[in-house]
Amino acid sequence: MCGIYDHQDAARFAYFSLYALQHRGQESAGIVTSNGKQVYNQKDMGLVADVFSEETLNKLPGNIAIGHVRYSTTGASNIINTQPLLISHKGKSLAVAHNGNLVNSIELRRDLEQKGSIFQTTMDSEVILHLMAHASDRPFEDALQETLTLLKGAFSMVMMTNDTLIAIRDPNGFRPLCLGKLPNGGYIVASETCALDLVEATYIRDIAPGEVLICRDQQLTSIYPWPPCRSSFCIFENVYFARPDSDIFGINVYQTRKRMGQILARECRIDGDFVMPFPDSGNYAAIGYSQESGIPLEFGVIRNHYVGRTFIQPTQSMRDFNVRVKLNPVRSFLEGKRVIIIEDSIIRGTTGKSRVRSLRNAGAKEVHMLVSCPPTRHPCFYGIDFPSTKELIAAQYEVPAIAGHLGLDSLYYLSLEGMVEATGMTMEDFCLACFNADYPVPPDRSFHKDALGGCGC
Amino acid sequence: MCGIYDHQDAARFAYFSLYALQHRGQESAGIVTSNGKQVYNQKDMGLVADVFSEETLNKLPGNIAIGHVRYSTTGASNIINTQPLLISHKGKSLAVAHNGNLVNSIELRRDLEQKGSIFQTTMDSEVILHLMAHASDRPFEDALQETLTLLKGAFSMVMMTNDTLIAIRDPNGFRPLCLGKLPNGGYIVASETCALDLVEATYIRDIAPGEVLICRDQQLTSIYPWPPCRSSFCIFENVYFARPDSDIFGINVYQTRKRMGQILARECRIDGDFVMPFPDSGNYAAIGYSQESGIPLEFGVIRNHYVGRTFIQPTQSMRDFNVRVKLNPVRSFLEGKRVIIIEDSIIRGTTGKSRVRSLRNAGAKEVHMLVSCPPTRHPCFYGIDFPSTKELIAAQYEVPAIAGHLGLDSLYYLSLEGMVEATGMTMEDFCLACFNADYPVPPDRSFHKDALGGCGC
Amino acid sequence: MCGIYDHQDAARFAYFSLYALQHRGQESAGIVTSNGKQVYNQKDMGLVADVFSEETLNKLPGNIAIGHVRYSTTGASNIINTQPLLISHKGKSLAVAHNGNLVNSIELRRDLEQKGSIFQTTMDSEVILHLMAHASDRPFEDALQETLTLLKGAFSMVMMTNDTLIAIRDPNGFRPLCLGKLPNGGYIVASETCALDLVEATYIRDIAPGEVLICRDQQLTSIYPWPPCRSSFCIFENVYFARPDSDIFGINVYQTRKRMGQILARECRIDGDFVMPFPDSGNYAAIGYSQESGIPLEFGVIRNHYVGRTFIQPTQSMRDFNVRVKLNPVRSFLEGKRVIIIEDSIIRGTTGKSRVRSLRNAGAKEVHMLVSCPPTRHPCFYGIDFPSTKELIAAQYEVPAIAGHLGLDSLYYLSLEGMVEATGMTMEDFCLACFNADYPVPPDRSFHKDALGGCGC
Amino acid sequence: MCGIYDHQDAARFAYFSLYALQHRGQESAGIVTSNGKQVYNQKDMGLVADVFSEETLNKLPGNIAIGHVRYSTTGASNIINTQPLLISHKGKSLAVAHNGNLVNSIELRRDLEQKGSIFQTTMDSEVILHLMAHASDRPFEDALQETLTLLKGAFSMVMMTNDTLIAIRDPNGFRPLCLGKLPNGGYIVASETCALDLVEATYIRDIAPGEVLICRDQQLTSIYPWPPCRSSFCIFENVYFARPDSDIFGINVYQTRKRMGQILARECRIDGDFVMPFPDSGNYAAIGYSQESGIPLEFGVIRNHYVGRTFIQPTQSMRDFNVRVKLNPVRSFLEGKRVIIIEDSIIRGTTGKSRVRSLRNAGAKEVHMLVSCPPTRHPCFYGIDFPSTKELIAAQYEVPAIAGHLGLDSLYYLSLEGMVEATGMTMEDFCLACFNADYPVPPDRSFHKDALGGCGC
Repeated sequence: MCGIYDHQDAARFAYFSLYALQHRGQESAGIVTSNGKQVYNQKDMGLVADVFSEETLNKLPGNIAIGHVRYSTTGASNIINTQPLLISHKGKSLAVAHNGNLVNSIELRRDLEQKGSIFQTTMDSEVILHLMAHASDRPFEDALQETLTLLKGAFSMVMMTNDTLIAIRDPNGFRPLCLGKLPNGGYIVASETCALDLVEATYIRDIAPGEVLICRDQQLTSIYPWPPCRSSFCIFENVYFARPDSDIFGINVYQTRKRMGQILARECRIDGDFVMPFPDSGNYAAIGYSQESGIPLEFGVIRNHYVGRTFIQPTQSMRDFNVRVKLNPVRSFLEGKRVIIIEDSIIRGTTGKSRVRSLRNAGAKEVHMLVSCPPTRHPCFYGIDFPSTKELIAAQYEVPAIAGHLGLDSLYYLSLEGMVEATGMTMEDFCLACFNADYPVPPDRSFHKDALGGCGC
Repeated sequence: MCGIYDHQDAARFAYFSLYALQHRGQESAGIVTSNGKQVYNQKDMGLVADVFSEETLNKLPGNIAIGHVRYSTTGASNIINTQPLLISHKGKSLAVAHNGNLVNSIELRRDLEQKGSIFQTTMDSEVILHLMAHASDRPFEDALQETLTLLKGAFSMVMMTNDTLIAIRDPNGFRPLCLGKLPNGGYIVASETCALDLVEATYIRDIAPGEVLICRDQQLTSIYPWPPCRSSFCIFENVYFARPDSDIFGINVYQTRKRMGQILARECRIDGDFVMPFPDSGNYAAIGYSQESGIPLEFGVIRNHYVGRTFIQPTQSMRDFNVRVKLNPVRSFLEGKRVIIIEDSIIRGTTGKSRVRSLRNAGAKEVHMLVSCPPTRHPCFYGIDFPSTKELIAAQYEVPAIAGHLGLDSLYYLSLEGMVEATGMTMEDFCLACFNADYPVPPDRSFHKDALGGCGC
Repeated sequence: MCGIYDHQDAARFAYFSLYALQHRGQESAGIVTSNGKQVYNQKDMGLVADVFSEETLNKLPGNIAIGHVRYSTTGASNIINTQPLLISHKGKSLAVAHNGNLVNSIELRRDLEQKGSIFQTTMDSEVILHLMAHASDRPFEDALQETLTLLKGAFSMVMMTNDTLIAIRDPNGFRPLCLGKLPNGGYIVASETCALDLVEATYIRDIAPGEVLICRDQQLTSIYPWPPCRSSFCIFENVYFARPDSDIFGINVYQTRKRMGQILARECRIDGDFVMPFPDSGNYAAIGYSQESGIPLEFGVIRNHYVGRTFIQPTQSMRDFNVRVKLNPVRSFLEGKRVIIIEDSIIRGTTGKSRVRSLRNAGAKEVHMLVSCPPTRHPCFYGIDFPSTKELIAAQYEVPAIAGHLGLDSLYYLSLEGMVEATGMTMEDFCLACFNADYPVPPDRSFHKDALGGCGC
Repeated sequence: MCGIYDHQDAARFAYFSLYALQHRGQESAGIVTSNGKQVYNQKDMGLVADVFSEETLNKLPGNIAIGHVRYSTTGASNIINTQPLLISHKGKSLAVAHNGNLVNSIELRRDLEQKGSIFQTTMDSEVILHLMAHASDRPFEDALQETLTLLKGAFSMVMMTNDTLIAIRDPNGFRPLCLGKLPNGGYIVASETCALDLVEATYIRDIAPGEVLICRDQQLTSIYPWPPCRSSFCIFENVYFARPDSDIFGINVYQTRKRMGQILARECRIDGDFVMPFPDSGNYAAIGYSQESGIPLEFGVIRNHYVGRTFIQPTQSMRDFNVRVKLNPVRSFLEGKRVIIIEDSIIRGTTGKSRVRSLRNAGAKEVHMLVSCPPTRHPCFYGIDFPSTKELIAAQYEVPAIAGHLGLDSLYYLSLEGMVEATGMTMEDFCLACFNADYPVPPDRSFHKDALGGCGC
């Protein structure tokens, strides 16, 4: 999710920002721009580089832009549900792009339908537009404040009218959102600092939890519609979701993950021949583990750079083919070795089993796994596309059973305290609900993620 | 390049072998199969995964197959020049796939045209088919021997008739070629062992330099048409070209590259804060350097996994954009650091300059580079797609000038002796011509690589 | 526009009906089906044969279907504006496909926006859905009657809920709509009888002006929400728009057009060598003219069957290329001849000029043109995609000036009386507004066709 | 088939010529050009308008061009077999495009393979290139004459070197070939005059049977390598194959076909209500029949202009669907009528049966058919893609049996004398082999059309 304000190359900057944020959503991509008078719109299913071309970018003139990349979820992955959402109402345009999940959207939607509103999408973000339409006889800021205070849940958002860019972060600040200055004037807001780095913007500060930043008439004004409350940063951004070269919640992701590996080495020392990640998710914790433990780091499996869209079925005899076609075990290296794998997390545990087996088939004598976060036992209602409790392996099984299931000689998870220590912050700063079920904003009774589609980023 | 003999899934095995060998050629891919009676053929421009589908594979029945992936060269990249080449002559089919370069093909071609032969492609491999056609009144083995002894240069080849698979390696053995046993019976020949690993074949042995292996009537027979000579293995396969999980010329590539890093650390110790590769080419030497020197390994830049076909132009202000869009410098990590980069080789030096500058822009204080081979000063006539002498940076400049050009604080190349030592073999085993101009097979006077297109693999 | 009720192959029958109705709209095509519980939807830009495949049809199960093909208009030709429109409101589905134009939609839309409704499309049909949503606390029939009586203009419509098909024709009956019985049970409604013929349905009767036919629980019930009024059939359907093999408003189109040619021969006898149409629009009137006058019919120009999407520019020297590439003048036939062209209508007059010149260049001595309707001098507000008054050549120029502009030796238009006589009906039965400016339903003051996009069929 | 000489827009003129000749081959299209030094080549499967774009035309510089469109035959429809064929031999380019069939190509090919030649295609045209290559130590004209005198059969050809265009017509002149002058200088040769008309070239004369026209150094020279013999023009060009606006063998096709209809009316008068063609093949004979007999012409079925690539299966109940989807019977017109159909020819008789039945189902009381040529009882060896004797319905059945098979009330074929009379020429001028088995050039014993693919045009 990103927004560009007051730059003649707004669409181009939005494009590159989305390109840098591609890891946050691969299902669809969209950009809306305005030249002060008219609003332009391009969105489609697919990766940023596939959705946009010089030709489509040239159809997006203007000096304001918002952009969005969306998750691949099974339920409602179609062109209608791409973001940003754009409407024209009473001759004015309003666009919104949203990262996170509202937990009371079903209730809000029911009320709106009762008043005759027709919904086009299954995304919770559409509720926001209808609330704005119903308040549209009030001045814009009043309508905005009224709408925002009706929302519950996680919502880092960018909104846009013909002449205004608005950046919004919910009072708990679940999802990151930062502000930067573009090299030749103008501003950028983006989910992660890596977007700022790519376009050579200078990081200014994070949008504060509960802040609404309004960019209009070349001025930036902040309003705070909610009473203050404690922050609930999503620690899973640091563990897995954010890009390692980003600074999230004020801390560098690479270094946080490396410290997780170092603390893991202090909590659990294994007698192994070498440490390895499965590329590339555990790379940084693996480096931390290796440096702290003195056990050498090696690349026991090598990522295939040409993995494409192969849909060719293997022959019956080829075991663990789907793993081996992407990750090539270095047979002559693994033979007879005691291997320590560092993983960032285990969610469903579906690929782990055949990954471990492929190491054993290549000759590994022992396979141990260390995970740089605690067991993920509870669903997320705030925008991480976690499976339901039934599919979370750590919600179904104890650690030794998981080790058995994966075919490991041993399995260890980082402690909750160790994980938080690695961030340099405190337990109170974070939402840790997926580890400890302590949900900062209770979801609506009828809340069910699938009904509304996944989050967007 | 690969061949499958005596397996009902021949096309599928060939497909997966090519998939594993994709790094050896990304321009085009092709497979020819035979069911003993009829020969089938599918080839096109593009990656293996794009050229083939279940549908196209189903059009390739039979239990013999040969496959080929081809390099992207500028001169003659078109559908006509895809391999394997297949002809029908006097009602019999003959197909050939070739890795390497003939150095006397122009001369051979001139003679054939004089006799009325018409050439369809600009590939040297076509010469072989015409020679076979002209000798076609002789028994097949005789025609083959007569043809092969006319050829000079580097040629690992697979040939196929309706009922026979032939694997050929030139007497110097420039390019690798190995033989394996398929899990449920049948044989495979392939350029690298990584193809055997993917299809779970068991490695038997390398095809020997000067060996012609004929697979027919479920029997494997070897003939040796040339007098014995010293081997000239291409050391650049070990340095750069082959996949790290392959064993090439009997040695593991990963471990060889790691030893190159270790020897590099003994030859040149730099006082730096950390060692890093540019992903992924210098990964293995970087591990070796780090372990030998004790200087920690870090990932100072991170490969973008979503690099696609973006052709969107950056704005004028974005410096070194093409590097940064692929490789993300970890700004908060590089800041103020003395960085040691390990590279596998420097050919043209074109990308190096902006890579180094992107590190400095991200805050690096010093940038040193160590290269895990000697300066590459001479063109290759045997199948590595090296630029001409004019474009080889080390042929044009001395090492300090190269360092200056790349913006480095220091630059060091591994010694020729160090490189060979890392392989565990001797100088006599290898072709080192690109480093020392000692060409084992003198090229034809009129030889000019571009005239015939690049090598295939 | 078509609807299928109570047949297991509903989507397939809708597909073939749209295929037969393709001449009524080439911009986009869509089908919505229901199996009683769930509603399915496929639509896209393009021709029917391109939008649908066996695969997409298989995604449209159920025994109720409505389908639509849409005009190509310049203003708002995009995927959002394809029909049928489908919404889900309070858990119930409602779909609508509309042929014609509402003349008070801007007013209705303004009122709805005031109440907070958000519009997704620029089509007048969407107004109908919002009106239904606002009346959704009433029983369905009541809501429907309330909604319909608010509409003014031309609207032949099919509507669909999960279990009901509704066919609607406005009280003036501007656009045709007929009812048929499917060969194996079930019913079909369609804009023209040619759709019934293709699927071998038996024609039952036309939906009457002002009739609302409700198909539910395997019963057909009619209600009549409006007070009776005189009919205003669009005579341009007979002149040009409908397919010649259809019966429209109870009369056969082919024979009507042939009679127009016969009456034309009585009104204006030209001394020419032969009569010819430009294929294929004037074919039937040309036959009538030839038979009545005794002047032989010939094909002076021949339609090129392979006209494709050629965008290749001709060289400068090639005159009237765009005509000649589609219509090949038979040079050796035209040479020295006095040619009588029969046209069905002249709207903009843009292609006529070069068509006439291509005949002269092929050697024609005289070129006369007779048109089988009066001059079209006024815009249509009821669904024929006429240009604005400014672009209607007959609104700008008198007949002799048009003849001069087109390069004709003479030009004659059929009289209004002659045209109506050819139908066998009376002036009172028809809307003749495009000829005589007598508009049966006065348009809204703010009505402007472009604001709402063109009609659909 | 066409050739352009001495015009800077050679490729563009070739493109438009092929566009006009599209009816002669829809399988593939290709153009080769030369700018005097280098030769350029573009060809692909598909229609002319799909194969070429402004972009591809711009890759065809030069002022000489030859072009070709090819038939769709079942045997060998692939990219390899597209024409023009282009080779480079001893550094010189030679391209050939061929319309017709050689009847001794298998023999010639066997001899060439014996000498070591490798064939890439299954087209008889390739034989010509190999013969030229084997004679390439002789001066070009000598090599050409030597090659041509070895060929037997039907061959209208254009050949091209870097600086020369050659147009060749076999001594019997089976296939047409004409010469024209381009509007701004330069020459054109083409299979039919309709290509000249489209590019506004002036017709000069036909290339004479047995003539070889050499265009070089801006001079046109003719040589005549064969002894004179009687001509054998293919009368099927006049009956069916050529475009009606072309003049073929010096006579206009439209008028010839109309005269066939007139003579048909004299030979066989039917008592019917109206005459109709199935659009569009019998249009011209139908006009002749109507004018001569005084029975009115009507369009009893109407061609659907939107017939696309529909592959949707009809439901079981839909009879004769494939006919009705293309040709719409005008039900209210056919009801109770006695219909006289005029057809140009009946080859396999496969579509006729359901065409006739669709008329009966639409209500026709009687259906009579008259064919404007005699029964086609014998295969063609000279380039018309006739089926084998087994598939020719008139070779298998007598006329009354054919009438019964097609469901007709009566069937009549034009007499051989009547057909020839319509041309204004004599029996001696034509090849009438498909009607009377009198083959002017006896085919090779081993000749089998399928072995070599179909003809090209």
